[in-house]
Amino acid sequence: MVRLNSAARSLIESGPLAHLVTLNSDGSPQVSIIWVGLDGDELVSGHVATDQLKMRNMARDPRVSLSMESSVTNDDGLREYLVVHAKVRLTDGGAPELLHRLAQTYIGPGTKFPPMPDPPPGQIAHYRIAKITGAGDWVDND
Amino acid sequence: MVRLNSAARSLIESGPLAHLVTLNSDGSPQVSIIWVGLDGDELVSGHVATDQLKMRNMARDPRVSLSMESSVTNDDGLREYLVVHAKVRLTDGGAPELLHRLAQTYIGPGTKFPPMPDPPPGQIAHYRIAKITGAGDWVDND
Repeated sequence: MVRLNSAARSLIESGPLAHLVTLNSDGSPQVSIIWVGLDGDELVSGHVATDQLKMRNMARDPRVSLSMESSVTNDDGLREYLVVHAKVRLTDGGAPELLHRLAQTYIGPGTKFPPMPDPPPGQIAHYRIAKITGAGDWVDND
Repeated sequence: MVRLNSAARSLIESGPLAHLVTLNSDGSPQVSIIWVGLDGDELVSGHVATDQLKMRNMARDPRVSLSMESSVTNDDGLREYLVVHAKVRLTDGGAPELLHRLAQTYIGPGTKFPPMPDPPPGQIAHYRIAKITGAGDWVDND
């Protein structure tokens, strides 16, 4: 398994929007923006709606990518970014609790999320990292 | 062909980083962040280095997606974003001139780009829009 270094973990914990790429049944790419968090050496995301295209795609083909913009700009004026290539697995339940936790970073402290009164348990997507790319020092050479 | 409405065109012309998804030879997704501009009803990007993985991928499989974050947040605290699904075609030459034009928006007025003295002509990627998704009012119902 590939491990995130401290710079990559800091970026993820700062609440960057993650562009999640899944694969449609015809092999073409599908993209949605989601919130992500860390769970040990994996990334996780919560989904109260489990019938969406991205959820069906992830259940069928676990090859996904997550790309996130950094706030750091290099000497040529280009923004750094992190791309995590992962194998995803879905587990039932826990989505509202995870989303509530992430909302404290992505929206702000004290946020109630999801906004609806009785959200369904949904699913959690667990991303096991296979490869890290992008632009930035995301891999420690030690 | 799918046309961008004025809100989508304004977003693209504001200089958002575009998360470009291409397909590897094994069908898995590849992601790079690039600059994009408008050329009529198509999007375009310039590439001085033509031997990169994303360029080889686009030459082999024209099915790509481009996702861009908006600065607008909806009532639930979620950011709007635009996803353009497209068929890409590559043409030779013109990359430095296009990149220089885009740098005036992405970096700032008066920027010299590419930074190297004699950049190669490279390639331009032309994205013919097949479908628009995301979160936001990107399609006019007229």
